[in-house]
Amino acid sequence: MLRTHTCGELRAEQAGSQATLCGWVQKVRDKGGMVWIDLRDRYGVTQLIFEEGVTDTKVIEMAKTIGREFVLKASGEVVERFAKNDKIETGDIEIKVTDLEILNASKVPPFIIDNDTDGGEELRMKYRYLDLRRGEVRDKLMLRHKMLQATRKYLSDSSFMEVETPVLIKSTPEGARDFVVPSRVNKGEFYALPQSPQTFKQLLMVSGFDRYFQIVKCFRDEDLRADRQPEFTQIDCEMSFVSQQDILDTFEGLTRFLFKEALDVEVGEFVHMQYDDAMRLYGSDKPDVRFGMQFVELNDVAQNKGFNVFDQAELVVGICAEGCADWTRKQIDALTDFVKRPQVGAKGLVHVKCNTDGTFKSSVDKFYSQEDLKAWADKAGAKPGDLILVLSGGIDATRKQMNDLRLHMGDLLELKDPMNFKPLWVLDFPLLEWDEDTQRYHAMHHPFTSPKEEQIPLLDTDPGAVKANAYDLVINGVEIGGGSIRIHDQKTQALMFKHLGFSDEEAKSQFGFLMEAFEYGAPPHGGIAFGFDRLCSMFGGSDSIRDFIAFPKNTSARDVMIESPSPISRDQLDDLGLDLLPSE
Amino acid sequence: MLRTHTCGELRAEQAGSQATLCGWVQKVRDKGGMVWIDLRDRYGVTQLIFEEGVTDTKVIEMAKTIGREFVLKASGEVVERFAKNDKIETGDIEIKVTDLEILNASKVPPFIIDNDTDGGEELRMKYRYLDLRRGEVRDKLMLRHKMLQATRKYLSDSSFMEVETPVLIKSTPEGARDFVVPSRVNKGEFYALPQSPQTFKQLLMVSGFDRYFQIVKCFRDEDLRADRQPEFTQIDCEMSFVSQQDILDTFEGLTRFLFKEALDVEVGEFVHMQYDDAMRLYGSDKPDVRFGMQFVELNDVAQNKGFNVFDQAELVVGICAEGCADWTRKQIDALTDFVKRPQVGAKGLVHVKCNTDGTFKSSVDKFYSQEDLKAWADKAGAKPGDLILVLSGGIDATRKQMNDLRLHMGDLLELKDPMNFKPLWVLDFPLLEWDEDTQRYHAMHHPFTSPKEEQIPLLDTDPGAVKANAYDLVINGVEIGGGSIRIHDQKTQALMFKHLGFSDEEAKSQFGFLMEAFEYGAPPHGGIAFGFDRLCSMFGGSDSIRDFIAFPKNTSARDVMIESPSPISRDQLDDLGLDLLPSE
Repeated sequence: MLRTHTCGELRAEQAGSQATLCGWVQKVRDKGGMVWIDLRDRYGVTQLIFEEGVTDTKVIEMAKTIGREFVLKASGEVVERFAKNDKIETGDIEIKVTDLEILNASKVPPFIIDNDTDGGEELRMKYRYLDLRRGEVRDKLMLRHKMLQATRKYLSDSSFMEVETPVLIKSTPEGARDFVVPSRVNKGEFYALPQSPQTFKQLLMVSGFDRYFQIVKCFRDEDLRADRQPEFTQIDCEMSFVSQQDILDTFEGLTRFLFKEALDVEVGEFVHMQYDDAMRLYGSDKPDVRFGMQFVELNDVAQNKGFNVFDQAELVVGICAEGCADWTRKQIDALTDFVKRPQVGAKGLVHVKCNTDGTFKSSVDKFYSQEDLKAWADKAGAKPGDLILVLSGGIDATRKQMNDLRLHMGDLLELKDPMNFKPLWVLDFPLLEWDEDTQRYHAMHHPFTSPKEEQIPLLDTDPGAVKANAYDLVINGVEIGGGSIRIHDQKTQALMFKHLGFSDEEAKSQFGFLMEAFEYGAPPHGGIAFGFDRLCSMFGGSDSIRDFIAFPKNTSARDVMIESPSPISRDQLDDLGLDLLPSE
Repeated sequence: MLRTHTCGELRAEQAGSQATLCGWVQKVRDKGGMVWIDLRDRYGVTQLIFEEGVTDTKVIEMAKTIGREFVLKASGEVVERFAKNDKIETGDIEIKVTDLEILNASKVPPFIIDNDTDGGEELRMKYRYLDLRRGEVRDKLMLRHKMLQATRKYLSDSSFMEVETPVLIKSTPEGARDFVVPSRVNKGEFYALPQSPQTFKQLLMVSGFDRYFQIVKCFRDEDLRADRQPEFTQIDCEMSFVSQQDILDTFEGLTRFLFKEALDVEVGEFVHMQYDDAMRLYGSDKPDVRFGMQFVELNDVAQNKGFNVFDQAELVVGICAEGCADWTRKQIDALTDFVKRPQVGAKGLVHVKCNTDGTFKSSVDKFYSQEDLKAWADKAGAKPGDLILVLSGGIDATRKQMNDLRLHMGDLLELKDPMNFKPLWVLDFPLLEWDEDTQRYHAMHHPFTSPKEEQIPLLDTDPGAVKANAYDLVINGVEIGGGSIRIHDQKTQALMFKHLGFSDEEAKSQFGFLMEAFEYGAPPHGGIAFGFDRLCSMFGGSDSIRDFIAFPKNTSARDVMIESPSPISRDQLDDLGLDLLPSE
């Protein structure tokens, strides 16, 4: 080894011994005949010291030529410091350098390599290899490393078998978001990259593998939203001979284990909530339950009092903001502006201040008496000092708007501590959702999700009302994972395809080999997939998954460091039997 | 859970208790009022028993309708068997079934689902999900699962950090075997799939990650040899601030750990061998050292005795086959035929029988006296009763032929026990190899491999003689892993590019971002990559990597189960801005 210790290792006990360290120059101070260098590696920072008259002249002269990010090998005696630095773990000691070697020089880096950097996102991404030297970025990837190991340990210890499924698979006509890969060996034909290993994991259940897992890259070629990546990582799992409850228990166990291993956090109860309740009480299928402010439907107390806006509304819904009765007009106007933003889309906001003296002051006093408003307050559980905020309109739109407002209030009232974790299972999602564009039902999860058995007859009469054996794990308002119990018998599968508007031909061409596999003894099975990038960012208390990916792509799906994607040569195209269409 | 136990779990101790099992029907026997069913899952096989007059009539009637591979749920009492079956772990008990449910029916499978199957390779691959039900196939994937877990445990415990590098990377003009991926979002541009994460792992060293690992899919679009796959898995590692010896020690440790964890085998010494010695003594850079028969160069004793063939040869080389002096003319003729096969390419084979009476009988008695032949025998360490086999010609060709012959003799003499593991480090590979086609030197490993420091001056005078800090791990004649200490300073890198015939421009366009990264403080570093599929097949005592991949592609790079690759639609092509060139 070039070194005897890492830069994070030495303590006062080692004082008096010799050590050799290797690392990067974090900082150089040259003052009054003394030179100090902070030497950094993955494990920590150690101070090197050089003193005129004590340190060999050649060594101290060399030390003076050194700049930030030079790579050094330094040897000397470990000595206890006079002025200890309790901000770093090696702060009790320093190295009195006797031998120094510059292993490599460095140009001045394009931004400051420290947690507090002056580098903008774009610049840091272009020089991601330098960005990765910053402690807070490395810590995020270290968290990811820990979570990778802990996930596999838990699943492997629970009899799950890790199986690598293929990356070069088959493109399907419906795979509009598939990345495709032209084959050189089979010219004119293409592979596709998997959006998920769904069919393979179901095949593994048909194979009797019983419990499968994989932490696997998946791919989606689509216009990117701020926090999507064209390649992303999933924890992908499937189990046979289990009920929905078995799956929830198993993956509650995994989630608890991860919190414990990676963060040393004991998370509380995993609340179970019906999809319908989530929509009714939070206007969202991924409610953030770190704070209350559940929706209260006010139709019966707010309608038929002459306020036209409410009277014509399908839904009048309120939330109660505790202790906010003293909000100023300006604060409330800002809320009104918030709900009127096009992204939210409400027409206006009604508020009721529950004054501490027991009276009420609302923005609709013209239509409602004090008794009326008291009825609202009672219904909303509002106490004197609280503020009730009310929206109205069509059910779906109003719930969505109120969800936005509730989350916004959570921000304003600082109720969203990122390190306070509130996990939640949302259960019994609808099986189908109506698509206005194509005027037909689509599978909300995917076409292999099983309907609630007792509701199968409803498929013919009221398909939209049929619930699925489908579940999502939601933490702090973020969907972390989702899955379902699959259909494993052909009769139900055929019924499902019929309701999704597939002809037998279409079903066969798209899912042929899976359908055929199901004829040879498919076991009852179900599974789940976790968005691993998102899970890591959640654990790290961050909103951005990009920070938790070593080499992420930007919102245009480009890697600005390696400049990819990029054109390829005419020779390469010829070799693949491809031509570019003239650009429009 | 649908079941109380797996099919591999019940023992005599459980006799008298109730159990519910789920699984697949391995076999049904219906005889004399009794029905036995062998029920199978991943964990084992348990016998179900039904008896007329005892078992409920409806249950036994149902049992009689059941065929192979039906999926059952069966409940009943665990009873000790009269006739125990010591071939299976549950052979002491059976289940007296009281409740039976057919969870799914099965068509008659296209081949027998048992270790001893009647299914040919092609058919088993088409129905791979059924092939995977066979115990020996599942065992191979279970071995792989264990090796995956053990590898990560060892590396993670040794401070290696797992980092996922991107799959969608950049195509380089030299990437003739790159799979490319057209981007829809960035029309006309392409990603490439990595042949290895080489540049990313070196960047991670520049980032100070110190120790990196990843078990990662890599891709190569090339005409496939029998045992290559277009997608394959690597254990990929890199370390900073280490010498070559540190890397060898670390990965000897990993290899030992894997043998212990996966096979409970303590492997012996890891022999270190110079590349030059491997070529001289075995004619191969991946010698199989499970057996001796090292090459003996006979030029000094065999030349200038009037045998023209030897006199004109650059190399006369022999091996000594112990105890084979009594081989028949037919056996020796077969060896001659073997070396004359076009794949081997020798012109002929000389042999010397060292008779037990101390005399010699050779195929070249005309030219050599008994004393001459004794000199050969002494040189070859041949004892009475041994057989010496001799080839001659140009050095490289003759060594290659003798390697083929030696391995063939190893087969004939049954010296290649697949479960006898002899690991070997081959060291100090040449830095460059001459390419006759392009009439220039190529990097034998890759252009970032460092030359032996003391030999750098030779680059100008005798580049072919320069050795690299490059090493391969070879086990039983199979290359399992390889790596090198990398160049980390720009001066050496520039020199290297010059000798590889790159202009500054070319070097920049191909390796620009890595070259730039090296300007910001690259540490000394090196690494290794293991072919994981090959490692698994080696551990499983098999020659075929395909058996150790859940869903392999065939030798035409096709997945015959999902029928991939396949044509894509005109719409999809349009969407990607692509057209197919007319086929030639």
